[in-house]
Amino acid sequence: MPEPIAFLGNLDAEEEADFLAALAHAMPEETVRPFRTLSEAERTGIRVAIVANPDPAEVALLPNLAWIQSLWAGVERLVRDLGDDGVPIVRLIDPELARTMAEAVLAWTYYLQRDMPAYRRQQEAATWRQIAYRPPGEVTVGLLGLGALGSAAADRLVQAGFRVAAWSRSPKQMPAAVAGFSGPEGLAGLLGVSDIVVCLLPLTGETRGLLEAGRLCAMKSGAGLINFGRGPIVATDALLAALDAGRLSHAVLDVFEVEPLPEDSPLWRHPGVTVLPHISGPTTPASAAAVVAGNLRAYRASGRIPAAVDVARGY
Amino acid sequence: MPEPIAFLGNLDAEEEADFLAALAHAMPEETVRPFRTLSEAERTGIRVAIVANPDPAEVALLPNLAWIQSLWAGVERLVRDLGDDGVPIVRLIDPELARTMAEAVLAWTYYLQRDMPAYRRQQEAATWRQIAYRPPGEVTVGLLGLGALGSAAADRLVQAGFRVAAWSRSPKQMPAAVAGFSGPEGLAGLLGVSDIVVCLLPLTGETRGLLEAGRLCAMKSGAGLINFGRGPIVATDALLAALDAGRLSHAVLDVFEVEPLPEDSPLWRHPGVTVLPHISGPTTPASAAAVVAGNLRAYRASGRIPAAVDVARGY
Ligand SMILES: NC(=O)c1ccc[n+]([C@@H]2O[C@H](COP(=O)([O-])OP(=O)(O)OC[C@H]3O[C@@H](n4cnc5c(N)ncnc54)[C@H](OP(=O)(O)O)[C@@H]3O)[C@@H](O)[C@H]2O)c1
Ligand SMILES: NC(=O)c1ccc[n+]([C@@H]2O[C@H](COP(=O)([O-])OP(=O)(O)OC[C@H]3O[C@@H](n4cnc5c(N)ncnc54)[C@H](OP(=O)(O)O)[C@@H]3O)[C@@H](O)[C@H]2O)c1
Repeated sequence: MPEPIAFLGNLDAEEEADFLAALAHAMPEETVRPFRTLSEAERTGIRVAIVANPDPAEVALLPNLAWIQSLWAGVERLVRDLGDDGVPIVRLIDPELARTMAEAVLAWTYYLQRDMPAYRRQQEAATWRQIAYRPPGEVTVGLLGLGALGSAAADRLVQAGFRVAAWSRSPKQMPAAVAGFSGPEGLAGLLGVSDIVVCLLPLTGETRGLLEAGRLCAMKSGAGLINFGRGPIVATDALLAALDAGRLSHAVLDVFEVEPLPEDSPLWRHPGVTVLPHISGPTTPASAAAVVAGNLRAYRASGRIPAAVDVARGY
Repeated sequence: MPEPIAFLGNLDAEEEADFLAALAHAMPEETVRPFRTLSEAERTGIRVAIVANPDPAEVALLPNLAWIQSLWAGVERLVRDLGDDGVPIVRLIDPELARTMAEAVLAWTYYLQRDMPAYRRQQEAATWRQIAYRPPGEVTVGLLGLGALGSAAADRLVQAGFRVAAWSRSPKQMPAAVAGFSGPEGLAGLLGVSDIVVCLLPLTGETRGLLEAGRLCAMKSGAGLINFGRGPIVATDALLAALDAGRLSHAVLDVFEVEPLPEDSPLWRHPGVTVLPHISGPTTPASAAAVVAGNLRAYRASGRIPAAVDVARGY
């Protein structure tokens, strides 16, 4: 029997129970113990922690951690809180999450391509007016980020007939159908050709505030924006100004500087903004647990720690 | 030089010019003449008319018609106005229209599956609440009509991972992934398993008023409805009652008893209804003209009239 795995996070009781049940089901050979149930002696033996927004003070009470497995794909908080400790942080790379997120990108791309917000406004005014249909072959979707999620989204959009452009930090071998851009100089190129820009970037020192006034101005006139990455990547005031000036047509926002979005945020009431409560890529306990189980089995078998986040890079 | 083709319809000047230009481009060997430009002698020579909601009195002034080519897919008006004349009516079967319509079905299916109307209502109340995500594999989309448009939609939905059921008049060999229903007794079966019902039926004596109170009641509790077929297939009062009672969650309506939808229609203002101005499957002049050109060339070469609508059946 290997030493138990610690479970730390700020989930509510029901969510925690769901994840613990899914983990028990996916890896019956392991014992996963909520942090609060561990004695001081037991904590010393812990080598692996599974975490969902953990309290760093609790993590600090596990002195012999070999690695930390996050249940989320985004790790900006872990990098900030635990990055200096030197314990490898493994984020969730879940094919089911990539599928769900790619579907969200396609669904909300259709929302903009098919002018659903404009038809909604027309309905409010009882206006019967046909807006010229733009076939996907004439619409370029620009993806910011071409990692686990961005590349699944790119495949899905290409398959649906959209023109796809994508931007990453490092230059990449792109599928033939995708126009590739990279590095700071590549960003203006992508923004200048995209009718719909979809952000699937991690939040890092480099991406914080990336889409500020100047960059939003470099977007095509009338373009739409979808932010599924992290809230602070887009400058809210600059976005609202671009919408008010009619330079951008609409924004779909799933992530925000502060979540839940405060009730007094102007985003709730702006006609050019669709607010979503961080739902585009839900982590499902069953699929996340299967990924975690795979990582743990490889570790038990070989002692090898799964590929970890690059703390300096921030993702 | 063959005899000219007559062009009859109630298009506005710009639309007519677009169609005439597309037809001239697709079949430079033919001369297409607006009805109003034909002398009485010329009318006698006309064998083929291309029509878009024509005035029946004008059609009656073409005594030697061999067949009528419609520019629309739906022919209920032509069948009503001209069905008794015995001149074969050929409707538009356009693969590009089928693609566009299948895309519309997928886009608006996502609209309901991903709870876009509910998130919209939550936004109006500044409410941050995550609604449980339903993956496509757990959502059954029921198609009413499995013709040119319905089968393209079925393929697209299957490819996107939805469970698909379909209902037609005659029993059919279904793709493995599609649950088939047919005939009057099959309708209740389809309605009872579908989370989202999509109507792609033609308007005929049998389909007029098909979705009345009883049938809407046979739908799954909380199901959504998309009507892309024809307005009179759905009983508006019964639909509003089902929405008000919370038995149905939402309706997306693209077609109406009277179009444009009158300003005083309660549909405009109902929170459970999304009103679209008949845009789900736009006919594009270029692709329609290519289909018409193909039909005319086969006719010139062989004298064979393309497959015509069954007037008694109504489609
Ligand atoms: N809204 C939701 O529900 C939800 C759910 C899950 C995840 N997310 C967010 O989605 C993010 C992306 O997830 P992922 O799994 O796809 O991450 P990933 O595999 O690490 O990919 C990140 C991508 O961003 C690019 N990138 C990072 N910094 C960049 C920079 N400074 N300039 C240009 N490109 C940069 C990377 O470029 P390289 O390829 O060159 O490294 C990579 O292509 C997560 O970090 C999380 O914040 C949101
Ligand atoms: N909203 C828009 O923009 C738009 C655009 C284009 C078309 N439309 C509408 O879409 C309709 C369908 O077009 P389509 O090209 O797919 O027509 P289609 O190829 O003639 O197919 C009609 C389908 O409906 C079924 N059907 C007809 N009567 C039925 C009945 N009484 N019971 C059960 N099934 C019945 C037929 O069954 P069988 O297979 O057994 O014959 C067939 O599967 C058009 O008639 C038009 O009204 C709307």
